Amino acid sequence: MKSNKGILIVVSGFAGTGKGTLMKLLVERNENLKLSVSMTTRSPRPGEEEGVSYFFVTREEFEKNIQENGFVEHAEYVGNYYGTPRSYVEKQLAEGNDVVLEIEIQGAMKIKRDYPDALLVYVLPPSVEELHHRLLARGTEEPEVIERRLKRAAEESEGIESYDYVVVNDDLETCYEELLGVIRSAHFAAFRNEEFIRKIRKELSDYTFD
Amino acid sequence: MKSNKGILIVVSGFAGTGKGTLMKLLVERNENLKLSVSMTTRSPRPGEEEGVSYFFVTREEFEKNIQENGFVEHAEYVGNYYGTPRSYVEKQLAEGNDVVLEIEIQGAMKIKRDYPDALLVYVLPPSVEELHHRLLARGTEEPEVIERRLKRAAEESEGIESYDYVVVNDDLETCYEELLGVIRSAHFAAFRNEEFIRKIRKELSDYTFD
Repeated sequence: MKSNKGILIVVSGFAGTGKGTLMKLLVERNENLKLSVSMTTRSPRPGEEEGVSYFFVTREEFEKNIQENGFVEHAEYVGNYYGTPRSYVEKQLAEGNDVVLEIEIQGAMKIKRDYPDALLVYVLPPSVEELHHRLLARGTEEPEVIERRLKRAAEESEGIESYDYVVVNDDLETCYEELLGVIRSAHFAAFRNEEFIRKIRKELSDYTFD
Repeated sequence: MKSNKGILIVVSGFAGTGKGTLMKLLVERNENLKLSVSMTTRSPRPGEEEGVSYFFVTREEFEKNIQENGFVEHAEYVGNYYGTPRSYVEKQLAEGNDVVLEIEIQGAMKIKRDYPDALLVYVLPPSVEELHHRLLARGTEEPEVIERRLKRAAEESEGIESYDYVVVNDDLETCYEELLGVIRSAHFAAFRNEEFIRKIRKELSDYTFD
């Protein structure tokens, strides 16, 4: 059995833990797992596609959406808005697909309030030293930026206990399997199957022996 | 990652749902999963082995064990005591093995109070009609006994929402995979990994950049 409704899955983690790669694998390999496409007011960068990378909108359109409760979560970052459109999320859930969002803790906590059935997973590095190595290995950021990211991680780490699950990305494929296992098992949580439990209970109380 | 300590797993379900077979598969196929051997005051039946089927003890020995808090749960049934010895359970958990118990809801609720980290799983039949067919197909019980079992199931079904997970035994191998997935994923629950989360947080706050 598996509850018919999809699960809203929130994945968070420090920069450099590889959560982006994990989510890419999840949606590539599982057709009933959908990645939410965010809406943003920032300009498209070269190669970014409307409706794939982001939905690109004006500031006015975005604010109208906020007023109409059109986002499951949104945030402003360096002068631009970013948000998860509620319509897309609810359509996928109703169709029985799981929807996975990569967002930070503030958005995750808002989602947990609005969608108590949401599944919150935090991706951790095996150690901070390894995280530092990975950030250095990218070669794309100055040491000051990396230092800032690690300080940011220290702040973010205060909220990890608010998540339902933690997986450690040491080996990518192992971590992928663990994350997928956590998502699959979530469908068997008793609180997500109350309808089926009630059905069996009703069948038992109505049962006639002939 | 995986928390080093084992998890105490309680499996319950109506008679005829095949939970005994599922548990046999679990322990046969997973060497870090141990089935708890119960202690009882009833006499051994032909073929039953001391320490394998049960630990057979006198009523005095059993009651001494109760007084010494030697059981994680125990119950009296048709004049005989049955109990799960605490020493075996705690030894296995400390060694990092998961321990699986097949008990009824009263015992399950006691375990949840004493071991808040325990994992409670309820095995359900796909339908009550199918459950009835299976009980009939066994061919070992009179219709009155089967009717009593189904009435008993109706009472038991009141408590299913107190369990963490429900799996449906329609196809045995599918249900086995689901149950194993639920057990494996339980190791990644944030509340079972507080030590690792604290370690990462400490590493982040102590980190020096050189």
